[in-house]
Amino acid sequence: MPSAPVVLLTDFGLSDPFVGVMKGVLASRRPGVEVIDLTHAVAPQDVRQAAFVLMESAAYFPSGSLFVCVVDPGVGSKRRILWARSARRQFLAPDNGLLSWAARREPLLELRAVTNRRLFLKPVSGTFHGRDVFAPVAAALAGGLEPARLGPRVRGLKRLPFPVPRRGRLRVRGEILAFDRFGNAVTNLTASELPRGSRLGHRGADLGPLRTHYAAGPEGAPAAVAGSSGFVELSVRDGSFARRARASVGDPVEAHR
Amino acid sequence: MPSAPVVLLTDFGLSDPFVGVMKGVLASRRPGVEVIDLTHAVAPQDVRQAAFVLMESAAYFPSGSLFVCVVDPGVGSKRRILWARSARRQFLAPDNGLLSWAARREPLLELRAVTNRRLFLKPVSGTFHGRDVFAPVAAALAGGLEPARLGPRVRGLKRLPFPVPRRGRLRVRGEILAFDRFGNAVTNLTASELPRGSRLGHRGADLGPLRTHYAAGPEGAPAAVAGSSGFVELSVRDGSFARRARASVGDPVEAHR
Amino acid sequence: MPSAPVVLLTDFGLSDPFVGVMKGVLASRRPGVEVIDLTHAVAPQDVRQAAFVLMESAAYFPSGSLFVCVVDPGVGSKRRILWARSARRQFLAPDNGLLSWAARREPLLELRAVTNRRLFLKPVSGTFHGRDVFAPVAAALAGGLEPARLGPRVRGLKRLPFPVPRRGRLRVRGEILAFDRFGNAVTNLTASELPRGSRLGHRGADLGPLRTHYAAGPEGAPAAVAGSSGFVELSVRDGSFARRARASVGDPVEAHR
Repeated sequence: MPSAPVVLLTDFGLSDPFVGVMKGVLASRRPGVEVIDLTHAVAPQDVRQAAFVLMESAAYFPSGSLFVCVVDPGVGSKRRILWARSARRQFLAPDNGLLSWAARREPLLELRAVTNRRLFLKPVSGTFHGRDVFAPVAAALAGGLEPARLGPRVRGLKRLPFPVPRRGRLRVRGEILAFDRFGNAVTNLTASELPRGSRLGHRGADLGPLRTHYAAGPEGAPAAVAGSSGFVELSVRDGSFARRARASVGDPVEAHR
Repeated sequence: MPSAPVVLLTDFGLSDPFVGVMKGVLASRRPGVEVIDLTHAVAPQDVRQAAFVLMESAAYFPSGSLFVCVVDPGVGSKRRILWARSARRQFLAPDNGLLSWAARREPLLELRAVTNRRLFLKPVSGTFHGRDVFAPVAAALAGGLEPARLGPRVRGLKRLPFPVPRRGRLRVRGEILAFDRFGNAVTNLTASELPRGSRLGHRGADLGPLRTHYAAGPEGAPAAVAGSSGFVELSVRDGSFARRARASVGDPVEAHR
Repeated sequence: MPSAPVVLLTDFGLSDPFVGVMKGVLASRRPGVEVIDLTHAVAPQDVRQAAFVLMESAAYFPSGSLFVCVVDPGVGSKRRILWARSARRQFLAPDNGLLSWAARREPLLELRAVTNRRLFLKPVSGTFHGRDVFAPVAAALAGGLEPARLGPRVRGLKRLPFPVPRRGRLRVRGEILAFDRFGNAVTNLTASELPRGSRLGHRGADLGPLRTHYAAGPEGAPAAVAGSSGFVELSVRDGSFARRARASVGDPVEAHR
């Protein structure tokens, strides 16, 4: 039975060799380790986007998976690197809020500061801890390292505020969190919590009731769909909502009876 | 001996976590399964491009490979999901024509509608069947599931018309099917079927005779080359034909003696 | 214990199926072989960029790794394909200079021309040797093929001139070699060889002394940082040096006391 995979989530992109080099270090320290790319296309230094991706994705990976999350504008500074454990998964990430939204769904049961420099590459650069710290520590954990050897237990994960919709008597107001490749807008409105019979609206335009799938929307016109992460998405059938509605992250979105 | 790989072909791109999440489900359901990315950069909802990629690529994968093809504008609607088998390979795809060009090269010997919901994730979203249907079904097949348990045998694959060149006595007229990263235009003219001694032309420009490789073309000028898929390609040595000739998909291309 | 990985470095991009097809051939010829993508985003036909990526990355991969490097404007012409061995790693690449910068760090102990056509796919296209030559030869080597069976020993690797900084008594003049995804400029100045107490300059702007990490720079202003490959990088904290300074590859950069 293979061991659980190491899952990579970074803002390194694929145009530079950064991700490949991390995999080189993983393969050097732990031959045969299974590595899965979650995504490397987080916008540069966008910790909030990484927190969102991790929150909506973690549950689909095997028990025991180790998420190595490197969106790290503070690389080389005094910021902490954390190892964290939920009931089913493990995480390595800088302590900049990246883990805090996933922790809303899978409470973190143990946190440690990664301080044991004997696990790191030598020398440790000031600019590429993905290679020099995260990859060798992940390889050690994949090889069965006792987490207590990473460093001391700590408390107090840094948290990013999660944008909670405001609920009134007649309406719920939320916002656009992100866009996907197809131009669908993911909002912070939870599909299952909308008032029964709600219609959705964006910038004064009525998007009608919530649909169950993209092709159920009217042809060529914006519509609202129950997205795969549980959030309401705004879409255009066979088109791009982002372009059609000139929408932006942060745009207010509302559901009303 | 490892089992045959699962090969992914989608229009999901790599900027969202969709592909990573599919791999998470595959690894959860079938630890250690080998996954190969064919490409995820099919233009959004461009079933024709996916059909072309699959047609030119399938033969290079091992016997028994399972191609999981998710370019699926109808996701969540009543469209069928098919499992298909040729003499050497297996396929999962929506029944929207995606498999029909590959089927010209490897006849499909058995078709089944994938209807056994016990194989799917629960609940099945209306918008991400790659995660909720295709990945768990692929994991089950990779684990040896008897195809008869997927669902009933069906007939009548949906077909996309393949643009066949028109052959006259003195000339063959075809068109540009696609461009690659280098700006080479792939046409539907089959290199081995051109009239002997043909010269190629595009929009009134003479591209000369068919060359055997890119560097055989004149420096800086457009030329025609026998491409690696058997089709005639139009290229510019050390440059981009697409940019140089302002060419578009669908442009007529002609071969004449 | 798994065997060493095959590491891919190409300019194929990920929008076409070229890389996927190479992996198909590798999996067909050598089931279970481990493949790592270094990067496929080398600019089309930019041999110099590929040489740089290989030089800075090779040392992070396991002993015995086989680097398959396909940036090959001369594909199909009479150019040689080389197999090369250093003390710890192996390489396959066209003889166009691609290996020459890595060879400055890991001297090549044995060079062979890859001429044994029995190892290739049949037929060999004139345009896609990644699929028809490099992949099957790599699979054979990963399977333990004796390198002597590739072809005859040769001498005289083609070399690309490496831009060595000019050192004066008071200053060192170098240039920008490349940009990364974050807009950081990698220069050819070696951080450890700068005159003690140097300040860096670019186009008349003073960038101050060398910093140890990005976040140590002044907020929003250009700075110089000791990069992870040993070279001086020019960066903007939480921003893009490339955009901010309108910098280009080849721009002169200087260090002075």
